[in-house]
Amino acid sequence: MIHSKLLKANPNLFVFLPIYYIVWSDSLLSPYEVELLRAMLAQQPWLKPDEKEFLLAQLDPAKQPVVDELKLWLDEIKKVLDATPSDTEEGLVDIGIKLARLHNEGKDNLVGVRPHLQEIESSLGLISKESVFQFFPERRKTITQQQGTEGTFNVDQLAKILDGKNDEIIHKVKTILSNPQFKYLETEDLPLYREKVLQWCHKLAEHGLGSIAYPKEYGGNGDMQKYFAVMETLSYHDLSLVIKFGVQFGLFGMSVYFLGTEKHHKKYLKDIGTLKLPGCFAMTETGHGSNVRGIETTATYDHSKRSFIIHTPHQNAQKEYIGNAACHGQMATVFAKMIIDGKDYGVSAFLVPLRDVEGTVHAGVVIEDCGRKMGLNGVDNGRITFDSITIPYDNLLDRFASVTADGKFDSPISSDNRRFFTMLGTLVGGRIGIPRSGLSATKSGLTIAIRYGDQRKQFGPEGAAEVPILNYRTHQRRLMPLLANTYALHFSLQYLTERFLNRKEDDMQEIEALAAGLKALSTWNTTHSLQECREACGGKGYLSENRIDALKNDTEIYTTFEGDNTVLMQLVAKSRLTEFKQEFSNMDLFGIFSYVAGQAKTSIAEMNPLIVRKTDEEHLLDFEFHLNAFKYRERDILTSAAKRLKRHIDSGMDSFDAFNVVQHHLVQVGFAYVERIILEQFIAQVNRTEDAGCKQILNKLCQLHALSQIDLNKAWYLENGYMDGVKTKAIRKLLNQLCWEIRQDAVPLVNAFKIPDVLLSAPIAVGK
Amino acid sequence: MIHSKLLKANPNLFVFLPIYYIVWSDSLLSPYEVELLRAMLAQQPWLKPDEKEFLLAQLDPAKQPVVDELKLWLDEIKKVLDATPSDTEEGLVDIGIKLARLHNEGKDNLVGVRPHLQEIESSLGLISKESVFQFFPERRKTITQQQGTEGTFNVDQLAKILDGKNDEIIHKVKTILSNPQFKYLETEDLPLYREKVLQWCHKLAEHGLGSIAYPKEYGGNGDMQKYFAVMETLSYHDLSLVIKFGVQFGLFGMSVYFLGTEKHHKKYLKDIGTLKLPGCFAMTETGHGSNVRGIETTATYDHSKRSFIIHTPHQNAQKEYIGNAACHGQMATVFAKMIIDGKDYGVSAFLVPLRDVEGTVHAGVVIEDCGRKMGLNGVDNGRITFDSITIPYDNLLDRFASVTADGKFDSPISSDNRRFFTMLGTLVGGRIGIPRSGLSATKSGLTIAIRYGDQRKQFGPEGAAEVPILNYRTHQRRLMPLLANTYALHFSLQYLTERFLNRKEDDMQEIEALAAGLKALSTWNTTHSLQECREACGGKGYLSENRIDALKNDTEIYTTFEGDNTVLMQLVAKSRLTEFKQEFSNMDLFGIFSYVAGQAKTSIAEMNPLIVRKTDEEHLLDFEFHLNAFKYRERDILTSAAKRLKRHIDSGMDSFDAFNVVQHHLVQVGFAYVERIILEQFIAQVNRTEDAGCKQILNKLCQLHALSQIDLNKAWYLENGYMDGVKTKAIRKLLNQLCWEIRQDAVPLVNAFKIPDVLLSAPIAVGK
Repeated sequence: MIHSKLLKANPNLFVFLPIYYIVWSDSLLSPYEVELLRAMLAQQPWLKPDEKEFLLAQLDPAKQPVVDELKLWLDEIKKVLDATPSDTEEGLVDIGIKLARLHNEGKDNLVGVRPHLQEIESSLGLISKESVFQFFPERRKTITQQQGTEGTFNVDQLAKILDGKNDEIIHKVKTILSNPQFKYLETEDLPLYREKVLQWCHKLAEHGLGSIAYPKEYGGNGDMQKYFAVMETLSYHDLSLVIKFGVQFGLFGMSVYFLGTEKHHKKYLKDIGTLKLPGCFAMTETGHGSNVRGIETTATYDHSKRSFIIHTPHQNAQKEYIGNAACHGQMATVFAKMIIDGKDYGVSAFLVPLRDVEGTVHAGVVIEDCGRKMGLNGVDNGRITFDSITIPYDNLLDRFASVTADGKFDSPISSDNRRFFTMLGTLVGGRIGIPRSGLSATKSGLTIAIRYGDQRKQFGPEGAAEVPILNYRTHQRRLMPLLANTYALHFSLQYLTERFLNRKEDDMQEIEALAAGLKALSTWNTTHSLQECREACGGKGYLSENRIDALKNDTEIYTTFEGDNTVLMQLVAKSRLTEFKQEFSNMDLFGIFSYVAGQAKTSIAEMNPLIVRKTDEEHLLDFEFHLNAFKYRERDILTSAAKRLKRHIDSGMDSFDAFNVVQHHLVQVGFAYVERIILEQFIAQVNRTEDAGCKQILNKLCQLHALSQIDLNKAWYLENGYMDGVKTKAIRKLLNQLCWEIRQDAVPLVNAFKIPDVLLSAPIAVGK
Repeated sequence: MIHSKLLKANPNLFVFLPIYYIVWSDSLLSPYEVELLRAMLAQQPWLKPDEKEFLLAQLDPAKQPVVDELKLWLDEIKKVLDATPSDTEEGLVDIGIKLARLHNEGKDNLVGVRPHLQEIESSLGLISKESVFQFFPERRKTITQQQGTEGTFNVDQLAKILDGKNDEIIHKVKTILSNPQFKYLETEDLPLYREKVLQWCHKLAEHGLGSIAYPKEYGGNGDMQKYFAVMETLSYHDLSLVIKFGVQFGLFGMSVYFLGTEKHHKKYLKDIGTLKLPGCFAMTETGHGSNVRGIETTATYDHSKRSFIIHTPHQNAQKEYIGNAACHGQMATVFAKMIIDGKDYGVSAFLVPLRDVEGTVHAGVVIEDCGRKMGLNGVDNGRITFDSITIPYDNLLDRFASVTADGKFDSPISSDNRRFFTMLGTLVGGRIGIPRSGLSATKSGLTIAIRYGDQRKQFGPEGAAEVPILNYRTHQRRLMPLLANTYALHFSLQYLTERFLNRKEDDMQEIEALAAGLKALSTWNTTHSLQECREACGGKGYLSENRIDALKNDTEIYTTFEGDNTVLMQLVAKSRLTEFKQEFSNMDLFGIFSYVAGQAKTSIAEMNPLIVRKTDEEHLLDFEFHLNAFKYRERDILTSAAKRLKRHIDSGMDSFDAFNVVQHHLVQVGFAYVERIILEQFIAQVNRTEDAGCKQILNKLCQLHALSQIDLNKAWYLENGYMDGVKTKAIRKLLNQLCWEIRQDAVPLVNAFKIPDVLLSAPIAVGK
């Protein structure tokens, strides 16, 4: 085309060159639009017949220009681009006019032609305007390209708020872990890996971290608070380490501490704290995991020898999945049914020797290796079978159960069940340590994914610079709410820890429910967050070197151990139903439900139509609105679950069946309860924050957290008429907006976790 | 108590023993209820003062009976239990009366007392009725306990429907894989594992499976359909095998086949199909994964030598994550920008030798091992850097781009972009193979989890037999919809394959969109399903021996490779917007949106208030209702996305920013489109199924699939007034009901996948 004589004879025809370039260089114009163009060309009165014919022929799909011809056109067009202002609103025809003018040696011969050209310009509309960017993509400045990291607060201040009074111990643990002795082991060789993790545990014990929670008289520090902070901080390292550490000093040590009495403390605690006596916590059996009350290992009392015989009656009753058992454990706290004179006195705990100090397994004990697991392969889980092992009477951990000198069972708690649950209650600390550990893994994952997203560029406006992937809205919607959740859960788990440390007898039911619920919600959040982090890092997230692999696979079991999450949420719900019952103690078991249901429905002022449809930003960002919504949902779900239960039971359904029918509903009862607590604690934290910059960003994170929860539950709010569609849509919009705003603080927000680079280790996230 | 003289003097007091047992044996009675009991006792006129005092004293919390005393009470109570009918509606007092009668030597002395007792009975209400079960738990028959596996259809028939015309090749591949040569390797040693997978590939090639899709003249079978069936069936085995297989025979072989011309086919295809020539597909670069159009490797044409110089200009342009590269690949299809005379002619593909037959890497090629990954560690991924490697001209895969004898670039497609996307389009088969492979992994996971759930028992009514966990509603709600999705996706992926195999030029845009969307939805479904399977199997699901570990970690990258899912869903959305545009080709680009939006809103008959609130089962189970709902959502989301885009662009926003603002919405456009196709294909399958039993179960699965999708999207339906809360609630109820019903067919339904036990391998799922 460009060498055509016609073009030389009438340089005005150059006016079409940019349009033709767009037609052929890409698929921006649809066949219809090309057709439109042909029709308009055919009608141009200022074109001579041969010129028209020439121009129309050039649009024939069968006669596309060769590649080099196209490149020539572009070269030609570029000649006039410098003269185009950078904030141009010009279209293809405008550029064409300049080109024609150039070929007319600067003269503008297009006066009579302009109206026709303008018609063509406007018929192409958007296409014309957007296509122009192809010619100078570098001039295109989109909002999306320009976003970046701009911290609005002091990272050190926020880190202080997160660490609180544990800052010293956290610092100490981070320093220890940053020592080259703790360099990650790059091996998949099980024996090597397990030895390494054991060595690490020894080093931690040498630093006094193992016994930190035990009383001073047994070599400890008497500081349970610090113990949790240690667990949390260790979890920035290899998670096999924290679990091995937790099995030894937490599960095993605490079982001796809480279920034993002074004689056990004196004899064992010091050696446990120094890891001189490696041990196990042998509760789970093959046949009984969630329903541990049903375990079948027996501890038969032999009065003649004042001893117990520990026995595994059948294969399904073997102890299963016992950490520290496959290789290192020398003793185990074994849960077994105590049998005296043929009578079953329910589950008690016994100290059973497994190996001698050389590591040789004792006769009568058979230990199998559980083998490779999805994660936590530095922990040696094993199966243990006992073949009528005799242990002395003193190995009974006898705080809650004992046998009198004349061979009679004795306990301060008569009911076997109640005794069992009281025993379990003393071990609730595990349900605090695990979610805190999982949250640290989440923090590592988010730090990696967010730093990577801030740096990794992919795609951009046509021909222009590529854009950090964290600037994309879907990427923000994936990661920002998870960042907000992480902060929310941090403060809630702090709160739970405080409640636990300052517990009184009367609080226990509530604390147990809270621990169960927070454990479940928090560890599910960990699984979900790390899944998103993996995907957000694409192929890089799949390489083991970037550690999302290990974080994800190691924490995968967190949703199962220390109580299967679905089972735990039902426990929470049952506890809530009981509290409900107690709250109205002058009514009978189910009679209160209809009363409360009525109450809840009518007492909610915000159910009026104005508020249901209220969408102004001030209202939607107001914590009072959030909290009301959370509380309303909590109460309504609880009462409706109670009513459904009652209806089924009234109709003659067995209560077990009734609970099963509403099981899905009960899980929601648990969620709604825990979610409300989390929001309350986050708001409380915002309110007590003094530093203005930190307060502002925490406030925004809390709003994001609240609104993203409401958005997740919006079906419920809509279904129950608490919100209208206009409101949930407005919330979604605001949610996207908050994500967009917080993205600028996202890197500083993960930096405030202060995870040492040497622990983070991922090449995509450190040293950038 | 039991030895009290008072009791002996007045055996009528035995009437209270069962109640007292319940008070002390467990925490079934609240403090309030105990208080109520005390008050009632205090008012009994038939009790003498000392008897009253005695009875009241026994309720004092400070004076709980010792454990052995409690056991005596139970022994006492048991004496009369045999006389209690098995379908008893009796309460605690009824049993007490029998006990009193026994101690009265069979005489009933309680005539005057009965009204008082009945008052006590009724005040305890439910507690009384339920507590009685404590005394004979074995008699309790709940619905939950009784559920089990009861197949309603012929498993072989259903398997035939699933396999369709591929049954022979599927059978052949299963037979090959069941040979001991294919025994899983239990090692984490990378070199060993990679060699094993290579050996397996050789064996598959020996059986002619590698070349099955290639033309007969090159040693193949010319059967692309079978190739996909092979991929699908191999995916019941170690997934490293299927990926290594896919890299060699799919990506590498197909790139030679589809991007090369006869000279390449003749020279290479046979050797590729026999694995004599192991090769790679080197497209991705460190800096460009999703945006492959931006790759920076150069292929500079040297006319003097009629050759190309392949070069990696900087580290970010190295080829990354290339399967078969770290160890075995001898040649690679390398995607690079062709440069002629300093001009960039866009991306083309070149065959570049990497290693000699001995495995020695050629000079100028540097290969690094990507190292350990989250999964697929049997595949040797590597990074490749080229230092000005010279290759002969004939190594250019020249179907879409060539250089003329006089050194000019030539192509049937002028536009660089269009040429690039046409090239990619020929490789769309990968987006069919991957989701089919992922679906096989899902089938393995569900087979393991469902068989385990059917066998594994945990918890039960107090004291009674434990219940299979698959009888719990939450467990059913987790797994049954995933089972329905698996069937749904199976038929959709079959449909996609058929469309692809019978493609015509004009279908390509639709097929590419469908492949992209189904790949994204299906692989996300795989990730989600295997997550649920892991959790549903608890700790057992975490043990590597049960294979959910490998299935989950190997498929984890499926959501990323062959196109990041989020990016793919946006492609689908953009394709939908374009189709939209073509559908109304007599309007301009955006003008049509308002027209269609209006159309969609008003033409939907089912938006009338009656239907919005219609909740009868017949309606809710009706495919027409489901399909209308899916279609309405699809159309409405598409038009509202288009309108939002238009509004933003009209207001002066750059189109790139506008697409970013609505990005989240666009992903939903993609989902809604694919979901509708999936439902249509499932319904079509139900309709064409002839076997009555199979038709019935498929019908039910399809209803479950449709309703669970609607339930997942219910917020949208509520927000947009398409359904009222009463309707979404009714759907939830029906969903639970369908899960409950399908549970009985769940094991037969996974058995119909006919995965050989030797491949399934998980001890918790085979040999039971």
